[in-house]
Amino acid sequence: MRLVGYRLPGGDDVRVGDLVDAPAGTGADAPGGLVVPVTTVRDFWLDPRAHVAAARSAGTTGALPVERVELLPLVPPSARVLCIGLNYRAHAAEGGFTPPPHPTIFGRWTASLTAGGVPAPVPAGEAGLDWEGEVLAYVAETIADADADTARAAVLGYSTFNDLTARRAQKLTAQWTLGKNGDRSGPTGPLVPADEVGDLREGLAVRTRVNGELVQDGNTRDMIFEVGEILSLVSRTFTLHPGDVVATGTPDGVGYVRTPPWLLQPGDVVEVDVERLGVLRTPIVDAGGRKGA
Amino acid sequence: MRLVGYRLPGGDDVRVGDLVDAPAGTGADAPGGLVVPVTTVRDFWLDPRAHVAAARSAGTTGALPVERVELLPLVPPSARVLCIGLNYRAHAAEGGFTPPPHPTIFGRWTASLTAGGVPAPVPAGEAGLDWEGEVLAYVAETIADADADTARAAVLGYSTFNDLTARRAQKLTAQWTLGKNGDRSGPTGPLVPADEVGDLREGLAVRTRVNGELVQDGNTRDMIFEVGEILSLVSRTFTLHPGDVVATGTPDGVGYVRTPPWLLQPGDVVEVDVERLGVLRTPIVDAGGRKGA
Repeated sequence: MRLVGYRLPGGDDVRVGDLVDAPAGTGADAPGGLVVPVTTVRDFWLDPRAHVAAARSAGTTGALPVERVELLPLVPPSARVLCIGLNYRAHAAEGGFTPPPHPTIFGRWTASLTAGGVPAPVPAGEAGLDWEGEVLAYVAETIADADADTARAAVLGYSTFNDLTARRAQKLTAQWTLGKNGDRSGPTGPLVPADEVGDLREGLAVRTRVNGELVQDGNTRDMIFEVGEILSLVSRTFTLHPGDVVATGTPDGVGYVRTPPWLLQPGDVVEVDVERLGVLRTPIVDAGGRKGA
Repeated sequence: MRLVGYRLPGGDDVRVGDLVDAPAGTGADAPGGLVVPVTTVRDFWLDPRAHVAAARSAGTTGALPVERVELLPLVPPSARVLCIGLNYRAHAAEGGFTPPPHPTIFGRWTASLTAGGVPAPVPAGEAGLDWEGEVLAYVAETIADADADTARAAVLGYSTFNDLTARRAQKLTAQWTLGKNGDRSGPTGPLVPADEVGDLREGLAVRTRVNGELVQDGNTRDMIFEVGEILSLVSRTFTLHPGDVVATGTPDGVGYVRTPPWLLQPGDVVEVDVERLGVLRTPIVDAGGRKGA
């Protein structure tokens, strides 16, 4: 099951659909697959587990070719997008950081999120965008003062994520927020339910490619703080809600620490490829691509 | 004009209203004033200037005693809540920081915001909450790559704000986000349109009181980065939308730097009092007050 957010042409409400292959031999003209309607994003997060269960037993009634809809992030507008910095030892080391004693949490707003295939613009004044291939975890339940096991069990599923970063803006001050919220800088892939993914601690390969060249080759088993611990810590300060998400950090191999630095330029294509979650593809465009953001 | 967000008992949509005094001699039983309906929050931010103009010339038709509604923040769920740290020299100095060369931007999510009068809980594990009296600026227009004058002219108005901080969580790592997003930790007062407030650079007194005792006594003329500069900088990385807000920083006098440290305890009442914007009152409660957040 691969859940996506989408909007119909001319539509207003963001909806949730299940992305499936077009059945062989039906003559359906949908090379990218079909989107089977589930419900609205708003209703989905009122009871996400029930909607996942219902979608699993549903047929393909009302399915639309994915080419006919606009794919969008699956999260509600109010979602907290928690991002964890320095969560792989080799990535902390490549940036000159010692592994932190607690999860290093910074925030994105949902306005920075987008779907796979949507071009990401390089803001004027940036030398490019840096890639950060990641796994994004989606919260299914309200969590407050939870232990790590409880918090981990509250994860609905996971998707690919690229934490595309404007390094100049990120490093202007000690707080990273600005450089982590560029227009359309947070592509998200389809959500795969947790029971189809397994435990991140057992290891999913996380790979990033730029124009086909492998630049990151990590594994979720190397995370310093696993998703249950992270959500547990957060839940002691604020109450997590269904639809909140956690970007679990990127492995080593980012661009800005290389000699010479390597940043994404307009015309490049970056792909995040996570085992069991699929490939998230993002073309890079120049600052003119900020229009309408 | 004092615009507030509110919800009717049993209602679903968040609406915008204008908070007015009950007319003398009408016998209206509304000691806290009346809320004159304007529109929904969703529609308001589609054309905020038109709604402000219409509300100015409207009567009090449909007005409700404020006691009968639930006051809520005026922002849409997707709003970016930009917060500026270290934006007053004396406050930077009291924390042991040198004044930064650029605005130090961190983020809140709208889920942390609340209205005046709503109790703010101290999370378990915190020694208390710290106060940070501030002015919050509300963006009226889409802003991208704007200069400071253009960005400043795009401000719809201002409200009081208290950036209530969980210092333990804030200082766990180098990123402040966690400690700045506690449940109901961001009370916001009514929005006063910019033309009734004037230019923050000319100076508004910003005072904070704890149980009636004055603890902060600053003035917006002492901001290092004024709101136009801040929005201009941000707009070069991401596009600001109507309803986005900027908490412009707190003057000196916060609690954690005192000897001994002074943090808000359950039973305390903290007030942020800003010239022309009014008084924002927040009772502090224990961690049990997180329920339902």
